Amino acid sequence: MSLNDNRDVTPWEVSESLGEGDYVRIASEFGAGLIDSDLRNRLEKLAGGTNPFLNQGVFFAHRDLNLALDDLESGKGFYLYTGRGPSGKMHLGHLLPFMFTRWLQKSFDVNLIIQITDDEKFLFRDLEWKQLSQVTRDNILDILSLGFDARRTHILIDSINGSTLYRRGVEVARHINVTLSKAVFGFQDSDNVGKFFFTSIQSVPAFLVSSLLGRNIRCLIPHAIDQDPHFKVSRDVLPKLGYLKPSSIISKFLPSLKGGGKMSSSDPNSGIFLDDTPQVVRKKIMKYAFSGGRDTAEEQRKYGANPDIDFSFNVYKLIEDDQVKVSKIREEYSSGSMLSGELKSLVAEKISQVLAELREKREIATEKYDEYLFSEDRLIESFR
Amino acid sequence: MSLNDNRDVTPWEVSESLGEGDYVRIASEFGAGLIDSDLRNRLEKLAGGTNPFLNQGVFFAHRDLNLALDDLESGKGFYLYTGRGPSGKMHLGHLLPFMFTRWLQKSFDVNLIIQITDDEKFLFRDLEWKQLSQVTRDNILDILSLGFDARRTHILIDSINGSTLYRRGVEVARHINVTLSKAVFGFQDSDNVGKFFFTSIQSVPAFLVSSLLGRNIRCLIPHAIDQDPHFKVSRDVLPKLGYLKPSSIISKFLPSLKGGGKMSSSDPNSGIFLDDTPQVVRKKIMKYAFSGGRDTAEEQRKYGANPDIDFSFNVYKLIEDDQVKVSKIREEYSSGSMLSGELKSLVAEKISQVLAELREKREIATEKYDEYLFSEDRLIESFR
Repeated sequence: MSLNDNRDVTPWEVSESLGEGDYVRIASEFGAGLIDSDLRNRLEKLAGGTNPFLNQGVFFAHRDLNLALDDLESGKGFYLYTGRGPSGKMHLGHLLPFMFTRWLQKSFDVNLIIQITDDEKFLFRDLEWKQLSQVTRDNILDILSLGFDARRTHILIDSINGSTLYRRGVEVARHINVTLSKAVFGFQDSDNVGKFFFTSIQSVPAFLVSSLLGRNIRCLIPHAIDQDPHFKVSRDVLPKLGYLKPSSIISKFLPSLKGGGKMSSSDPNSGIFLDDTPQVVRKKIMKYAFSGGRDTAEEQRKYGANPDIDFSFNVYKLIEDDQVKVSKIREEYSSGSMLSGELKSLVAEKISQVLAELREKREIATEKYDEYLFSEDRLIESFR
Repeated sequence: MSLNDNRDVTPWEVSESLGEGDYVRIASEFGAGLIDSDLRNRLEKLAGGTNPFLNQGVFFAHRDLNLALDDLESGKGFYLYTGRGPSGKMHLGHLLPFMFTRWLQKSFDVNLIIQITDDEKFLFRDLEWKQLSQVTRDNILDILSLGFDARRTHILIDSINGSTLYRRGVEVARHINVTLSKAVFGFQDSDNVGKFFFTSIQSVPAFLVSSLLGRNIRCLIPHAIDQDPHFKVSRDVLPKLGYLKPSSIISKFLPSLKGGGKMSSSDPNSGIFLDDTPQVVRKKIMKYAFSGGRDTAEEQRKYGANPDIDFSFNVYKLIEDDQVKVSKIREEYSSGSMLSGELKSLVAEKISQVLAELREKREIATEKYDEYLFSEDRLIESFR
């Protein structure tokens, strides 16, 4: 396994200054491939449609995505695995990537495991179970508000599903030594032993279905690029256990409200919360949202804005189903015919509309919460 | 926490040449106290009787045993926790210490958790689950053949009871870093991360009852001295989680058939197996058992034997209920009036008698196997 010499991005630290060019460099340094137009066309053709996260290049890199598509075509199929480390209220930026996963699930009618790594937050962020259990439930409901298929979705909570996870985590752990963990994750001897073990638990859903069914089913993992070190380790270890390497489809981070880096749960003004009222959304967007526009209306009319660094545009492009409209607005904003205030106003309204829909669906998800929870029997059943 | 500078004994390595004096030295270096006559008298008085393992000084050291007895007297009570790493067929030497635990359970009518650390053997001995699951069941039945109280005995299997163990193991792990693990257990960076994490899992039964009941109940751990490093770590960490330090009552190893060190499961002639026939027992004792006798009958009549290093006598003194008879035979053997062959013959017969009784009770245990298995509900219930 090649080691992670690049520390702009680890699962627990992301440099504030990541730009577009950095993503391509990091993916290449990590050893992931870029999603080229051929691969994208193949994915879209099989999915029977496209998705803003692909159009807009947010999911931009991959590992062995082609093999997952091969297995789909040959009838072997694959399943999806993604996750969330519950550390606080979810921002729109945390939730948006799950929209892409939902699209994948819907397009291919495949099973999905969502791992909630509350153990990770316990070990890395010193959060306590009491806080975590409330946050976990809230985060799960936020995710489910996107409308995942209850029959095909399996929420695995690390602190609860230990009987499934621990014995299989041990299988992975036997193949990871401290030298490797230090090299890949940058740990030191002063770090707690749970941190060193944790990646083994995060690996389990990547072979859990194969382990439970007793035959290999490929796993495709949609994840943000910071999680790549974990899955590089999984890809190294799983074949030693007789399982397939998991495939990945890898996203950039969504920029934070104030620009740069990854959104944070700790600063209330760093992003849009799912329970923000239209008034709050509007205020945050108008007042704090990082803009790609010019300093004055006059300059903007003259030189145009840069939508690629503009928070509002970057959210808008992903939540607007009508991608023709997105292109039109990009054009107007870039050319200077649309001002920042106009764009912000339009986006604030669109966000509030999306949030209202999510809140409605969240009510339904609350009632159906238990149906989504993982059990070995239900997972096995869902592959019958 | 003081570090383990003494490497004659770790949970995975025991020097072959441990003598009586070494035990006192190691206990003192580990920081454990010796069981003096006052403490022994107090224990026996509360137990309403004595036990060969105490009489004969096999359980010789302790940590905070007095506090467990205080809690007994004050009505708070305590529970017992012991364990077994299943790596092969059980020798008599593996089983005998459980007799003492059974005596403790019976004398004080207390609950007992027996942890089966199959994960440890998976991680440290490269055994596979398939082998381990058979060995685990066999070992459990061997242990249960001693006649533990089904209502008060809870068998916790690490690979199965992960939902109970993992989340609590994580709580312990947060307080153990790699520096400490290296110092206490002698691990290196080339060791797998599961080994580093494992001690956290072995700590869990020491506070599991308190965790499940929501109030502190003291845990008393009967264990061989090689396990002391684990529980030294537990004693350091548990108060940080709001739990009591566990108490320990600590044994020497039973010598191996051929003399010295700890019995091994891998050499068929290193000990008496529980399924050895009377013929095999007799042959092993007569042919292989390390003797404290002299080279010739003449010398023995003249100088007498050394019973303390004699395998047969050391087993006999623990399985003979009539300790007056044991004293008599010690006297005869030491003085030279009893020859090695006579002692061996007598002991072989006694062992076969004990094994026959155990095999009978094993049949009963096989039928009741499931009743002994751990569940959180049953454990909680047993403290009502």
